[in-house]
Amino acid sequence: MAKHFADQMLDAIEEKQAPLCIGLDPMYERMPKQIREIASKPKGGMGEQAAAAREFCQSVIDIVKDQVPCVKLQSAYFERCGVSGTRAYFEVVDYAHENGLLVIGDVKRADIGSTAAAYAAAQLEEVFIGEGESEHAVSVDAVTVNPYFGLDAVQPFIDVAKQGGQGVLVVVRTTNPSAGDIQDIKDAEGRRVFERVAERVNDWANQAGVVGDSGYSLVGAVVAATYPDDTRLLRDLMPNSIFLVPGVGAQGGTAEDATLAFHDDGWGALVTVSRSVIYAWERPEYEHLGEVNWEDAIEVAVRDTKASLAEALARRAATA
Amino acid sequence: MAKHFADQMLDAIEEKQAPLCIGLDPMYERMPKQIREIASKPKGGMGEQAAAAREFCQSVIDIVKDQVPCVKLQSAYFERCGVSGTRAYFEVVDYAHENGLLVIGDVKRADIGSTAAAYAAAQLEEVFIGEGESEHAVSVDAVTVNPYFGLDAVQPFIDVAKQGGQGVLVVVRTTNPSAGDIQDIKDAEGRRVFERVAERVNDWANQAGVVGDSGYSLVGAVVAATYPDDTRLLRDLMPNSIFLVPGVGAQGGTAEDATLAFHDDGWGALVTVSRSVIYAWERPEYEHLGEVNWEDAIEVAVRDTKASLAEALARRAATA
Repeated sequence: MAKHFADQMLDAIEEKQAPLCIGLDPMYERMPKQIREIASKPKGGMGEQAAAAREFCQSVIDIVKDQVPCVKLQSAYFERCGVSGTRAYFEVVDYAHENGLLVIGDVKRADIGSTAAAYAAAQLEEVFIGEGESEHAVSVDAVTVNPYFGLDAVQPFIDVAKQGGQGVLVVVRTTNPSAGDIQDIKDAEGRRVFERVAERVNDWANQAGVVGDSGYSLVGAVVAATYPDDTRLLRDLMPNSIFLVPGVGAQGGTAEDATLAFHDDGWGALVTVSRSVIYAWERPEYEHLGEVNWEDAIEVAVRDTKASLAEALARRAATA
Repeated sequence: MAKHFADQMLDAIEEKQAPLCIGLDPMYERMPKQIREIASKPKGGMGEQAAAAREFCQSVIDIVKDQVPCVKLQSAYFERCGVSGTRAYFEVVDYAHENGLLVIGDVKRADIGSTAAAYAAAQLEEVFIGEGESEHAVSVDAVTVNPYFGLDAVQPFIDVAKQGGQGVLVVVRTTNPSAGDIQDIKDAEGRRVFERVAERVNDWANQAGVVGDSGYSLVGAVVAATYPDDTRLLRDLMPNSIFLVPGVGAQGGTAEDATLAFHDDGWGALVTVSRSVIYAWERPEYEHLGEVNWEDAIEVAVRDTKASLAEALARRAATA
């Protein structure tokens, strides 16, 4: 039996020397001009937009593949392109695998039992792409899920993931301004909803058969970097879960904040950055490179992000 | 400007004399043998499974179109069939519209702002299907969303829905056994998370520009029929929202329970039944018809469901 998601991820982080994931959010209006031109011919329809999204994501993969262990595909931007977008999603998953990257399908699905099982299968079991001789199967290595429905909505993902040695990342704490609307509601003992979710995630993470050789479970958590005190608390509440950590960069979290998602030994988290890297030429520090050199801007940005995260982790290790 | 979702829905309910929605959950293993055969040729791949799902859903639409105002597509079972499944989803949406039905896209999406906007566009803006001359646009009339991320995740759906006069149905109370894991957490005043969600939904439902001629908002709620006391409470908390009510039949709720989702005047809710109707020949009361007469079983089941709901509403009206 092949290693499961958590073990694979830790190996890949060690190999690339970076607990960093690049988020692929192909937003048409922000893609570089050369890519947007693909989307305008012959008629600027969804097929062309999907082709542009695929081309852009594959270019990003070419640039980052030796630097990071993992990419994360934001399903919404592919779904936006209809049928062609679904095809592009799985083609990009496939391309990332061909280039030695682990792939997280950021779909944030949830529903009652049998429906959740269908969502799980749609991402974690084999989806076939290509025609005739070149037809082959694709699936992602881990998927994000929403906890609002409770265990029923998560268990089918865990069941399917166990079969394939894949991962399930439960959304616990999000980065958006109104995250607190529901997540910060306090119970009679003063514990907030997201803490209660974390306790459930920890139960799920420690079920029989979901912990790998590394001691980490295939059930992980999505934990925003934007609330440092909460991150520290959540690290204690879910010791055996790998954290996927969004919110660094465009959403205001710092590399220092993100280090709180790691254990003292420097393991246990994967920081994910999307727009601050893939649209790097828009940022003041890289705009001198120009939109025409967008690939250079991405390359510099991923190296800089990797370095600043490594420095922040080294500072934390020195003071621990 | 065309009427918006709530007004259209109330008109359609009046026309069909039934506040009833048929849920299309095309589960391969439960579809009738004649349909499963479509999925086995020539090679039993996802294209064939998607074709079977489309054929089954279109047959159900043919049977129910004169009986009910609305169908609800469960996205998971289409996504399960990969790229072909996405195409089948929009083809079924299109077919339902051609047959005069309103369509709810049951996708239960949620994410931070700009990503939620992409999910909203993927369902509520135009998606193009067909080739060349026959290419045309499709979109659903309302979409289900998950509240865990808070307002950020819901507002983009409301914004897009307002443009198109469509609806947004926020999941408040679900039917599954572990619904209470998160939804029943009590705050310091004893109010449960789902009640707090309902208060938010009511705020969103009463924003400027989202209430139609009928007094109902385009922001509705998904409220399970399986907890009668909660349904009563939620009806009071969200007076201007149309309730989509699952949980009657296979999940244990009765027609009596479902009537609590309606106002005293008999309006304001839409009961949605899926498996108890579309797989009716599996049920003891209809199995005498046999799997080969699955279309007859569906037709009888939808009439029986409609009649029992009408009777329950009449009893409630008589005692109100």
